[in-house]
Amino acid sequence: MERLKQQIREHGKILSDKVLKLDALLNHQVEPSLIMEMGQEFARRFQGDNITKVITVESSGIPVAFATACHLGVPMVFAKRKKTLTTDEDCYMERVPSFTKGIVTDIMVSKSFLSPQDRLLFIDDIIANGDAARGLIRIIERAESQLAGMGIVVEKSFQKGAQTIREQGIRLESLVNITGLTDGIIHFDS
Amino acid sequence: MERLKQQIREHGKILSDKVLKLDALLNHQVEPSLIMEMGQEFARRFQGDNITKVITVESSGIPVAFATACHLGVPMVFAKRKKTLTTDEDCYMERVPSFTKGIVTDIMVSKSFLSPQDRLLFIDDIIANGDAARGLIRIIERAESQLAGMGIVVEKSFQKGAQTIREQGIRLESLVNITGLTDGIIHFDS
Repeated sequence: MERLKQQIREHGKILSDKVLKLDALLNHQVEPSLIMEMGQEFARRFQGDNITKVITVESSGIPVAFATACHLGVPMVFAKRKKTLTTDEDCYMERVPSFTKGIVTDIMVSKSFLSPQDRLLFIDDIIANGDAARGLIRIIERAESQLAGMGIVVEKSFQKGAQTIREQGIRLESLVNITGLTDGIIHFDS
Repeated sequence: MERLKQQIREHGKILSDKVLKLDALLNHQVEPSLIMEMGQEFARRFQGDNITKVITVESSGIPVAFATACHLGVPMVFAKRKKTLTTDEDCYMERVPSFTKGIVTDIMVSKSFLSPQDRLLFIDDIIANGDAARGLIRIIERAESQLAGMGIVVEKSFQKGAQTIREQGIRLESLVNITGLTDGIIHFDS
């Protein structure tokens, strides 16, 4: 994914030594051909893995999750973020803190869309501390669905999210790995 | 879009005489091939209209807006919903009530992604009262971008949203038109 790295170098804005703003290509505006290329790459990595559905958390993960689902030919489910904890019997709900927003939200998935027969590929745009990801993983466990693995566009390996998920024994694939944001430079692992 | 109507008949859940839940095909789970078909149809209707960008409001509009942008070969921008009114100099922000959620939210678009040179196609999943749509239209006006028109997957013509937008002189195309939800039946215009 050299094109992706080049786009990150060109359009990424370093806001602090922890926060990289990728609004121009991932979180606010997207280039469909680049997103479809990402989806194709995730589909290639999980080909033969009998994925029945792609799942993500709204909103920034939706384009790339959709593109991956397109290439795999399976439905895509997006978990919703709720402002208030409602006790809906028909939903799995988990409360998660948000690293970038500094607030607590609830994420939910309707019970209709997850079953023990499902083998899921969880796609997201960025992983920092992984709080939302761990929330969705708990939902997947409660639904007794299988999690084939996770596909992340940008892993920030200087934060603990990806590591804690791999330590749970979950396969996590990322398209690019950022090892640091020091001295105003985006450092990639290779 | 007969396939879409059939899916709405099969999976739509009437919650009241005003609210139709389309979680199984539009707002929570999506079938990529059906969404790509919708995008292709919007692209066909606005072909030759010199669209430079597709725009939508997070989250449910993102898959179909992305699919439309794919077919038109242009970028897609999604307006964000914010919990608090921050005064960000770099953003256009409008406060809008939400019909389905019963709350007020702020929608925002970064000034970087809208210019007077842009000719926009605004895509959304459903139009009811049109509050969020009118908010985004105000943002587009403030940015002095041109609005070529709107593409809506499901128009509920028994609510006032689509009508008020057409009365502003804006071209609004919908894929299906629901005229009522009485007696537990979804009534289409044809």
